[in-house]
Amino acid sequence: MLECNWRDGKWETTHIKPYGPIQVEPSCKVFHYGQAIFEGMKAYKDEAGDVFLFRPEDNWKRFNESAKRLAMPEVPYEVFVEGLKTLVNLDKEWVKYGEGLSLYLRPFMIASENGVAAAPSTEYKFMIVMSPAFAYYRGEVRVIIANQFSRAADGGVGYAKAAGNYAASFYPNNLAMEEGYQQIIWTDAASHEYIEEAGTMNIFVRIGDKLLTAPSNDRILNGVTRRSVIQMAKDHGIEVEERRIRVSEIKEAAQNGELKEIFGSGTAAVIVPIKGFKHEDFKYELPVIENDYATNIKAALMDIQYNRTEDKHGWRVKI
Amino acid sequence: MLECNWRDGKWETTHIKPYGPIQVEPSCKVFHYGQAIFEGMKAYKDEAGDVFLFRPEDNWKRFNESAKRLAMPEVPYEVFVEGLKTLVNLDKEWVKYGEGLSLYLRPFMIASENGVAAAPSTEYKFMIVMSPAFAYYRGEVRVIIANQFSRAADGGVGYAKAAGNYAASFYPNNLAMEEGYQQIIWTDAASHEYIEEAGTMNIFVRIGDKLLTAPSNDRILNGVTRRSVIQMAKDHGIEVEERRIRVSEIKEAAQNGELKEIFGSGTAAVIVPIKGFKHEDFKYELPVIENDYATNIKAALMDIQYNRTEDKHGWRVKI
Repeated sequence: MLECNWRDGKWETTHIKPYGPIQVEPSCKVFHYGQAIFEGMKAYKDEAGDVFLFRPEDNWKRFNESAKRLAMPEVPYEVFVEGLKTLVNLDKEWVKYGEGLSLYLRPFMIASENGVAAAPSTEYKFMIVMSPAFAYYRGEVRVIIANQFSRAADGGVGYAKAAGNYAASFYPNNLAMEEGYQQIIWTDAASHEYIEEAGTMNIFVRIGDKLLTAPSNDRILNGVTRRSVIQMAKDHGIEVEERRIRVSEIKEAAQNGELKEIFGSGTAAVIVPIKGFKHEDFKYELPVIENDYATNIKAALMDIQYNRTEDKHGWRVKI
Repeated sequence: MLECNWRDGKWETTHIKPYGPIQVEPSCKVFHYGQAIFEGMKAYKDEAGDVFLFRPEDNWKRFNESAKRLAMPEVPYEVFVEGLKTLVNLDKEWVKYGEGLSLYLRPFMIASENGVAAAPSTEYKFMIVMSPAFAYYRGEVRVIIANQFSRAADGGVGYAKAAGNYAASFYPNNLAMEEGYQQIIWTDAASHEYIEEAGTMNIFVRIGDKLLTAPSNDRILNGVTRRSVIQMAKDHGIEVEERRIRVSEIKEAAQNGELKEIFGSGTAAVIVPIKGFKHEDFKYELPVIENDYATNIKAALMDIQYNRTEDKHGWRVKI
């Protein structure tokens, strides 16, 4: 693991050491005031044994956008990106070769000052931990489109990869799971009329041959996979619209047969096809179609990640 | 400090031990998914040396409401309230007698399972830590009424005492401080037309002789001090309205001289008078008035807390 502490207004020396526990005081500010952000990334191995990161600068930039919104210090490129490269290089053997295998990387930062005064911490700890990851399959995914609970407010922290956003989603998600649904597609808190994201995934909707996704704003995480999916879709000649999507539009498309696919995008599974959804009393099962966007775009993205194809956008970074 | 762990679906034995560091793994879920809640309370000493808590059951109940919303287990009365009493009794000497002196009590709970899967933790740690507190005076407080950033969404976790709510408020609050204001009065995220709370305080507005405060809802913390202030005001024959308060109403009252007081309520300072506010281009300095509600209600509440008066609502709990 990698560890770097921020004290007296600056980052100290970065240390790489074996994974192990850290000592913190019970008054450590992260426990009380929740300044905690993270990124999720993966390292991939190709047939020749070379190891690659995928768009690490994008994660670094977003990490620092999250840091700013949570009143935390920005982490330098050398610590975050070069740190990742050094760490992965040391543990290269843990990046396994094979379909869907990877090494999951978790850069994160927490407030580490001790004290219970409600104010931003004056000390922070940045760390990177890693874990081997298998091909991610969570079974069939059906979702509830939210009509009561919310994930984020206008002018809030929804766009940041902030720990508190996840904690806020667990209870509504548990209620959804009790009804037999695996995830929630969040809607805007003001009207619950427009879809936003799924908490751990951005959401794409295919109506006819057009691919729609909600625009990134201060409530919606601007996912690296989201942007990659949009680019891949365009590369495949698919028309993509980034715009607000009404729940009623999705339901109408379902009723008139124009709704072809809904899928989520994220680092963990790249793309997760949604098999069905529920909104209030309306339930719908997505059709099984051939040559679907989800499968094609996922394959195209994984070909880039695993160095099986040309990387014309310069997304792969060789370790 | 007090420590009690929740594992395998149940609370284990409560331990009381000297304050000291705890060991956690970097993958401890609280660092990544932000399940963390707390309460702020105080123990007070009277002239005879007896020590009292103030409405501890109310804090316990709210703690469990926060726990439910954050998908965390509820903490039993025996662990929370009896634990507090036992702990304060052991450290009775640290509760100092004198105007405004107290022992600050911080019950909190964090997700303690290790692992980076984005799901509710299966293990939790409940702790209580304590710290001697002086009379709280933060200098003159002027506030900005928010017109851009938000603290909470409808259907979100604003009503919970969740760590992430505080982290979300620090950046906007830093911007306010750069402009010379100490706090923000948050407004509703949907329209920014109605005031809500100040993040660490509920807000009261006196227009004429009427005392107004926003109703508690799923965006606003239902403060124990807030409820006590409302009761004290009623006991003093003051007309109190719990209702939505338009920013425009406050500004109009300021312009026509009807705006007499604005103050915040919270455990730390009981009541914090607001000296002035800004909303967009509108700035206003509150008048200095005699026999103000803030001073009278604060004195009445402190008389109860320090056992200097009859406790007709049964709020004091003797240790």
